[in-house]
Amino acid sequence: MIKHKPILIVISAPSGSGKTTIVKIVREKCPEIFYSVSATTRKMRPGEINGKDYIFVSHETFEDWIKNGKVVEWAKIYGEYYGTPKEPIDKALKRGQDVILDIDVHGKRSLEKIYGKDVVSIFLIPPSLDILRKRLISRGAESKEKLELRLKLSREEMKWGYEYDYIVINDIKEKAAENVISIIMAERMRRERILNLKELLENEN
Amino acid sequence: MIKHKPILIVISAPSGSGKTTIVKIVREKCPEIFYSVSATTRKMRPGEINGKDYIFVSHETFEDWIKNGKVVEWAKIYGEYYGTPKEPIDKALKRGQDVILDIDVHGKRSLEKIYGKDVVSIFLIPPSLDILRKRLISRGAESKEKLELRLKLSREEMKWGYEYDYIVINDIKEKAAENVISIIMAERMRRERILNLKELLENEN
Repeated sequence: MIKHKPILIVISAPSGSGKTTIVKIVREKCPEIFYSVSATTRKMRPGEINGKDYIFVSHETFEDWIKNGKVVEWAKIYGEYYGTPKEPIDKALKRGQDVILDIDVHGKRSLEKIYGKDVVSIFLIPPSLDILRKRLISRGAESKEKLELRLKLSREEMKWGYEYDYIVINDIKEKAAENVISIIMAERMRRERILNLKELLENEN
Repeated sequence: MIKHKPILIVISAPSGSGKTTIVKIVREKCPEIFYSVSATTRKMRPGEINGKDYIFVSHETFEDWIKNGKVVEWAKIYGEYYGTPKEPIDKALKRGQDVILDIDVHGKRSLEKIYGKDVVSIFLIPPSLDILRKRLISRGAESKEKLELRLKLSREEMKWGYEYDYIVINDIKEKAAENVISIIMAERMRRERILNLKELLENEN
């Protein structure tokens, strides 16, 4: 059996690309992968579960984490911190577990600075801007101005794709999830990631 | 839809690893991939079909091909030539078709010299030397000496694996074929291979 150096799978996407659904399917089909839960200082909303949706912490704790390098990436949005705690990731990697992270391009860049080639980055895109617009509309009633602003933002975010390892089009969600899983499977079989290569190629067994 | 630069998928394996079966399954499941048929000067055997099993040519023709760079790789074994004609591959690539090649490590090296990073190399290995031995025995009655010689050869060939992009273990054949297909699917989604990247990330469509 191949024993591979665990990988960090980053999935990013412009808003409205349907990323949450894809990550959900991949997690269900690959329960062996550790899912990195983000931390935030914002208030918990009804229905949210601490440790599942987010790890909810105080501003004090988060600022302490930043100071002590306990988050691999973070951002402050409208006065609230969001970020990825380092310890759960390092523990998973130490166990030999792959990690999946649902973060943006800034998070990806920070992660690559720390984990180098162990990061496998996947950028999910909508099949077309027209479909993106429809998806944004279906999310809820927004004013035409807000919708146009969101679309403009998404179009800017699309350009992040130029720095990702893989591009996956989210047309049919099951197919997109399957493509993400193919990438994970393939990356596990890359020769440079195989820890027991000598054993596999030379052993007497 | 992603349009990718066509890739050359090389599948190699030590003798007795069950490569022929895996390549057959992959070809059946991915009929869109062009299969490169080898050429040879050896006599056609009963049941063999010219152009399917091999392209059967004269020594004169083969030597002319070598002289004029019409084979991407070749070898002379027991006085007969074996090799891969270049024209069918270049035509397939020009059509945008991926190519699959069932060749050995020497062929792989030649191919990489010509096609560089468009080559994706997969090395198929038996789950253990014990299973390899059983597979070699089941192929037909051979003397103990011949069997030991073949095993020794296979063990040497196993080391080719150190220079391949991917390692696939052929334990259960359907699973191994599925793994090869995952690699092909993933490689098609690699950002550097995507020809219409700008269109996908920036277009107005």
